Amino acid sequence: MEGPRVGVLARRISESTVRRLSFYLRILEEAELGGVGTISSEELAERAATTAAQVRKDLSLFGSFGKRGLGYAVRQLATELRDILGLDRSWRVALVGAGRIGSALFEYPGFRRRGFEIVAVLDADPNKQGKCWRGVLVRDVAELEHVLRAERVEIVILAIPAPAAADVSARAVAVGVKGILNFAPMQLRVPAGVAVKDVNMVMELEALSFALTQAGRTPWG
Amino acid sequence: MEGPRVGVLARRISESTVRRLSFYLRILEEAELGGVGTISSEELAERAATTAAQVRKDLSLFGSFGKRGLGYAVRQLATELRDILGLDRSWRVALVGAGRIGSALFEYPGFRRRGFEIVAVLDADPNKQGKCWRGVLVRDVAELEHVLRAERVEIVILAIPAPAAADVSARAVAVGVKGILNFAPMQLRVPAGVAVKDVNMVMELEALSFALTQAGRTPWG
Repeated sequence: MEGPRVGVLARRISESTVRRLSFYLRILEEAELGGVGTISSEELAERAATTAAQVRKDLSLFGSFGKRGLGYAVRQLATELRDILGLDRSWRVALVGAGRIGSALFEYPGFRRRGFEIVAVLDADPNKQGKCWRGVLVRDVAELEHVLRAERVEIVILAIPAPAAADVSARAVAVGVKGILNFAPMQLRVPAGVAVKDVNMVMELEALSFALTQAGRTPWG
Repeated sequence: MEGPRVGVLARRISESTVRRLSFYLRILEEAELGGVGTISSEELAERAATTAAQVRKDLSLFGSFGKRGLGYAVRQLATELRDILGLDRSWRVALVGAGRIGSALFEYPGFRRRGFEIVAVLDADPNKQGKCWRGVLVRDVAELEHVLRAERVEIVILAIPAPAAADVSARAVAVGVKGILNFAPMQLRVPAGVAVKDVNMVMELEALSFALTQAGRTPWG
């Protein structure tokens, strides 16, 4: 359960602010590993490629941190940021899609390190079902609702082709999942209160292609 | 070389417009495969989870397409969009980082299908150097400048840890690379005229964690 302070603020916190909080946290954790005790908003800004005023503004949304002239206590601010980002706990994640991208995600150590635990893997392909991935059985996506409930899944990762994504997303939302990380190249429609984040590498490359084409120049002519 | 029309417009075209163009293209290509000859802005909007007015506005930035009451010619609009997005050609891409994410990206068929050809792979790890990935030799990242020039690389994919990303990015930019797809969890600083797109799966999950935490509810209490 959340206190009202943060809940009330949530609506006016932009995606780019949240992204910067993630950056600040990484910088603070690196500093902590390096034995740094305090950090100024200027240093934090420099490493996050932003301004000190932006750092102070972002952090002020969540309370009063740091002391004028002394900077922020690295360890304490990192703890606060983990708390704000909901990283002071672990999250139960289901991966739908056991193909190339899915298996790379499953193997990616960065997820577990941050508390995102893949507790279920599902795929529509009978050749993949029944395999065991480091103790996690690959299940039939037909069993989605059952698996999500049984495993108390909070976040679903969709690593499946676009045509299947809308159906799986709707079914996950219907059993109460509130967070979806979508790798399918399509815009999911979800009800209010459900958060979707899209990762689409081909579309990012297309955006680069667009930028380079519009600029009309490539280094080798 | 680009004509002035599109070049002049490039500055006021937002990232979200470009993203929608990518969606429209996918929808049109699916429709074409399904034998559909024309499509209305309403149908396109419905499948792209946007409004017909938005579709018309996005497309009008690039010229006059479609006929009132008749809709858009699917095949022709797909060709136009590929042209606008710079997908009517292929792009020479270097992958820096031959780890888990890097190898999944290399194996991902979606890149080549869209004309993004990985012509070089580099890694700092001597154990990875010298291996051959489907005809592409994994080279020492120390040779970056030489490889980028020799292979006439236009886009660099960074699938390396954050501490190394700034240096590799600066070196790539110094030899004239204008497009970077960055998987490292850090904000790259690049000069004007260089386009960077970030893909960070852990940070997307953190943003979901933030949203779920702020909402203060998960399905299983």
